[in-house]
Amino acid sequence: MKKKIGIIGASGYTGIELIRILTRHPEIELTAAAALEVGQILSDIIPCPFDVPLVSAEEALRAGLDAVFCALPSGASLQFVRQFRSQGIKVVDLSADFRVKDVALYQKYYQMAHTAPELLGQAVYGLPEIYRADIAKADLVANPGCYPTTILLGLLPLLTGAEIDLADIIIDAKSGVSGAGRRLENNLLFCEANENFSPYLIGHVHRHLSEIEAQLAVITGEPVQVTFSPHLLPMNQGMLSTIYVKLKEPVSIEEVHRKYTEHYRNESFVKVLPLGKLTGVRYVAHTNYCVISLTAVPEKMLLIISSAIDNLIKGASGQAVQNLNIMLGLPETMGLL
Amino acid sequence: MKKKIGIIGASGYTGIELIRILTRHPEIELTAAAALEVGQILSDIIPCPFDVPLVSAEEALRAGLDAVFCALPSGASLQFVRQFRSQGIKVVDLSADFRVKDVALYQKYYQMAHTAPELLGQAVYGLPEIYRADIAKADLVANPGCYPTTILLGLLPLLTGAEIDLADIIIDAKSGVSGAGRRLENNLLFCEANENFSPYLIGHVHRHLSEIEAQLAVITGEPVQVTFSPHLLPMNQGMLSTIYVKLKEPVSIEEVHRKYTEHYRNESFVKVLPLGKLTGVRYVAHTNYCVISLTAVPEKMLLIISSAIDNLIKGASGQAVQNLNIMLGLPETMGLL
Amino acid sequence: MKKKIGIIGASGYTGIELIRILTRHPEIELTAAAALEVGQILSDIIPCPFDVPLVSAEEALRAGLDAVFCALPSGASLQFVRQFRSQGIKVVDLSADFRVKDVALYQKYYQMAHTAPELLGQAVYGLPEIYRADIAKADLVANPGCYPTTILLGLLPLLTGAEIDLADIIIDAKSGVSGAGRRLENNLLFCEANENFSPYLIGHVHRHLSEIEAQLAVITGEPVQVTFSPHLLPMNQGMLSTIYVKLKEPVSIEEVHRKYTEHYRNESFVKVLPLGKLTGVRYVAHTNYCVISLTAVPEKMLLIISSAIDNLIKGASGQAVQNLNIMLGLPETMGLL
Amino acid sequence: MKKKIGIIGASGYTGIELIRILTRHPEIELTAAAALEVGQILSDIIPCPFDVPLVSAEEALRAGLDAVFCALPSGASLQFVRQFRSQGIKVVDLSADFRVKDVALYQKYYQMAHTAPELLGQAVYGLPEIYRADIAKADLVANPGCYPTTILLGLLPLLTGAEIDLADIIIDAKSGVSGAGRRLENNLLFCEANENFSPYLIGHVHRHLSEIEAQLAVITGEPVQVTFSPHLLPMNQGMLSTIYVKLKEPVSIEEVHRKYTEHYRNESFVKVLPLGKLTGVRYVAHTNYCVISLTAVPEKMLLIISSAIDNLIKGASGQAVQNLNIMLGLPETMGLL
Repeated sequence: MKKKIGIIGASGYTGIELIRILTRHPEIELTAAAALEVGQILSDIIPCPFDVPLVSAEEALRAGLDAVFCALPSGASLQFVRQFRSQGIKVVDLSADFRVKDVALYQKYYQMAHTAPELLGQAVYGLPEIYRADIAKADLVANPGCYPTTILLGLLPLLTGAEIDLADIIIDAKSGVSGAGRRLENNLLFCEANENFSPYLIGHVHRHLSEIEAQLAVITGEPVQVTFSPHLLPMNQGMLSTIYVKLKEPVSIEEVHRKYTEHYRNESFVKVLPLGKLTGVRYVAHTNYCVISLTAVPEKMLLIISSAIDNLIKGASGQAVQNLNIMLGLPETMGLL
Repeated sequence: MKKKIGIIGASGYTGIELIRILTRHPEIELTAAAALEVGQILSDIIPCPFDVPLVSAEEALRAGLDAVFCALPSGASLQFVRQFRSQGIKVVDLSADFRVKDVALYQKYYQMAHTAPELLGQAVYGLPEIYRADIAKADLVANPGCYPTTILLGLLPLLTGAEIDLADIIIDAKSGVSGAGRRLENNLLFCEANENFSPYLIGHVHRHLSEIEAQLAVITGEPVQVTFSPHLLPMNQGMLSTIYVKLKEPVSIEEVHRKYTEHYRNESFVKVLPLGKLTGVRYVAHTNYCVISLTAVPEKMLLIISSAIDNLIKGASGQAVQNLNIMLGLPETMGLL
Repeated sequence: MKKKIGIIGASGYTGIELIRILTRHPEIELTAAAALEVGQILSDIIPCPFDVPLVSAEEALRAGLDAVFCALPSGASLQFVRQFRSQGIKVVDLSADFRVKDVALYQKYYQMAHTAPELLGQAVYGLPEIYRADIAKADLVANPGCYPTTILLGLLPLLTGAEIDLADIIIDAKSGVSGAGRRLENNLLFCEANENFSPYLIGHVHRHLSEIEAQLAVITGEPVQVTFSPHLLPMNQGMLSTIYVKLKEPVSIEEVHRKYTEHYRNESFVKVLPLGKLTGVRYVAHTNYCVISLTAVPEKMLLIISSAIDNLIKGASGQAVQNLNIMLGLPETMGLL
Repeated sequence: MKKKIGIIGASGYTGIELIRILTRHPEIELTAAAALEVGQILSDIIPCPFDVPLVSAEEALRAGLDAVFCALPSGASLQFVRQFRSQGIKVVDLSADFRVKDVALYQKYYQMAHTAPELLGQAVYGLPEIYRADIAKADLVANPGCYPTTILLGLLPLLTGAEIDLADIIIDAKSGVSGAGRRLENNLLFCEANENFSPYLIGHVHRHLSEIEAQLAVITGEPVQVTFSPHLLPMNQGMLSTIYVKLKEPVSIEEVHRKYTEHYRNESFVKVLPLGKLTGVRYVAHTNYCVISLTAVPEKMLLIISSAIDNLIKGASGQAVQNLNIMLGLPETMGLL
């Protein structure tokens, strides 16, 4: 029998992408799609072929769900997650609310108090390539941000060794416009974003930094500060992070490449390109893949890691389904491409 | 000495395009740029290289201007036009407020009462290719809409003859997103308009219809109703109308083409392509040109007229400067490309 | 056991889209992907996450396939279709080679001789919404063109009645750039197509006209000539046809709408929007749906039908899989969204 | 009397942009436009409103020109530059052929022998913000590359001091597609570049590196190697370089900002944004401006310089006209925006 799944926040970009994926998922039945526009159908709100009726979150709570995706803005998820968890329903939360365990750090970056700190302990950070075993046992998974996904996957094979200078990591990241969500802001208007390209929140201010640095600290066992410069790309879906790391000692690029391919050998959704080839958004658009390429600048003892995902899929809804598959004991790639 | 010119509504898309053109205009000095954001400079409001200080409309009234462009939404212009005209200042109004002489028709399509009907009499419809002589003598020019510009220029050489069936004109029109102005609406968001294409207000409802049909009636001397279907293109600037007209009697396409080239022989900004070539937005982007191509479907006694402009230039600010040049006795093409 | 399927022409846009769909198809196994680039893997040729090895068509012939997709340019398919058919392998051909039964008409529009006329008799035109029963029994299906798909689905409910004037149908159609295939031509360069929009092959010259008119003749039982004006949109995937038809007698738009919803009631992939709503590419992008909207212009006795598809999915690879599902006795929607 | 100017290579993207600018230039008359398509008019080759007849380079040589722009690919310019110079005609060369004085370096990066080394001595590097005085006296100006323009202008105020570590400069650069010229290559096709974003030639291989490092050596008086990572943006015109430099000693961002505003105080085409504001392509699109913003990462002793231009204007044709204005003794901004 299919699993009964709900979505809270079905009318945002990640909500619709979830519906798109679940429609093709052989073992999941979308039982309740909740959104503010209660009583309307999804295709009334946003052009799409899904005539899914929108219900209230309360109704979703009573729908006998096996699991629920919370696809709400940060801060808005907390109460719903508590309610669903109190009924024993598994939750994959796509907001940032459970990604950082440190309440003070959360407060600093998200500029609001965390109202469900008691749940932070049970939340598992949902990057399957690191925490697969924990996710399998979890009832609450904090689905990673899109930038952190590209960056952590891009750095992971080097984080447990001693090859690179953790104090000198520069990340020049670029995101398609859907990463900002469906909000009425001037800079998200077509005529402002099209034929434009610009940095935003560069330096040490973007919210995802808290998540990136928290994870880097957990993985490496020491505090790590990175330089992070996000930019807005004139495209709908796609993200690419260019990561500059300094090698402590000369290592051949072939050796680094071997380490990466070895590390990701058994991963279904992470690909490391052969040396000499460079990744790009087109490799991963509309898929759950992360495709990584490596370039050496030997005269600078520098390594350039380029890491690409689709911000709405591996950076949000695809990874959320990947996590749910793991939580439910289903094949990890089910319903995903 | 240079003419002193002001702009009311300097921070919209047509306002900025006016500033862009005037910056290069050898005989005009931008003396006052008014906008709601009084006290700020233009580049604070919208990314552009113009550090123009924004003043109030009242201040612009006291600036000793020779002429003013009103680049406000329809309905918002009326009071300012009255004020500037009462001081004897020439006005080119880019809104729809003075394009249609019939107050009832205005009210029907724009769903508001016209509050300056006394000025309608002196307003000249600013399509130089028809009304050049009147514009030269006018103090108030109603700058045409973008759709009407493509359509009237596309049809003009055939309107005074008897070749076509005026009762059976179908116009399938397509506009870049800037045609909608700088408004915070969902369908104008990048992620909604990009990789999208859709009709809007098709049938008999778009406001520009009032203007198109009013002008067609004046030119032909009889009431003319057309079918008008606008569509939204995923691009910033550009407009193309595909006009289907029925021939009453067989006329060779060569003859029609001769009529068009003859009609526009002395026009600086209207080009008729050789038979066999088809127009497109790229012909006219960022210029004041209208480029027209003609195609026959002889077995249907049908003529297809394709008429392209840049909606912000020949469809708005460029044509406004062309009109002002005429009003001030300057060379018509001055400052324009 | 899964069906063994091959693709001839795997490295074009429709080939890759087929692979994308088949990867998610629970009952199909991609057994052989043939392309000119024999020995390379797909992701070497075009950025994508599919490390599919490319083989020769000869190898595909020996791979024990149950069925094959031919995704080659028109003219290039003929010999392969003959070879696969002679081995009893079912074929869905995505080229135009078997869409038109009339060899002379084919020769006129495609400007080459048809070299496999003996197969025309067994080819079924693969528009499931008309020919589902025939497709189920067919061994060779000619997958429809993208423009004809929008147009035939848009007109179908009216073709068997007597409401409209078949002699006066105007189709203003718009296609994303992928519709032109992956060819090195100036007008397909990014800088030429981006921020551009233009007609091409308008009048009575586009190849798809032969297919449209051939089908209209079969369905209505009389010769039908339409006016067809294709345009190139600055987007990757998507197509919208705006169809203008004249009503012979006054019919209310409600009645027409009822007829459409009734006609498509049981169709999985055709949706008719409620009156007052307008379709657009975003409704159908990256899906196998055709979404239709209807608008009346009563004073002109005119009906405007807007019909949108994704040209690579319902206009090519999605419909091809839909056809294969039917041919193999699988659920028609399997693997599709 | 207007100056008589010619263009060699009029049908490429920079050639057309030159024509666009010269059309508005009050003191210049475009006397000869040469291209391979001799005998055709420009609008036959590429959609634009310019019916300029194309002549041969030989004809241009005999046209009594005061100066000529060579807008040819690198390597193709050399012979023409020699011919025009031998007739005493001033030349602005937009290729890379005269930018690097070191013939061996040229040969390494451009992989061809330099066939006019005798001219290298008289060529002045045409970045007016550095070499204005030399340009005024020059007969041959090597117009800078687009990437070097953003980078040199972005770094200039810091290069003569001792604040930054010249050995540790990382440049993450992004360019619109027109930067690659009008070439039939797969990665420049609309469907490949649209909704895509990717690095190319990263590491130490891009040709512009030779020019960047040669200039940095001249300006600083010591060899400087930078890390340079270009990326391809899905847009027509625009370029933004994000430059990461390490401060040797703590300097406040206010002090750095003061240095920049001071340095560029009298420059017409370089703007430094107030602290807290970030530049972007939209600031400079279709203008000759370079707009720079500064961000500090104090905890890393790092400075992030974001430098934006329009690659076809300040990065090519606009700067070329700026140089010619200087060479001819005209106001530097004439005809430019």
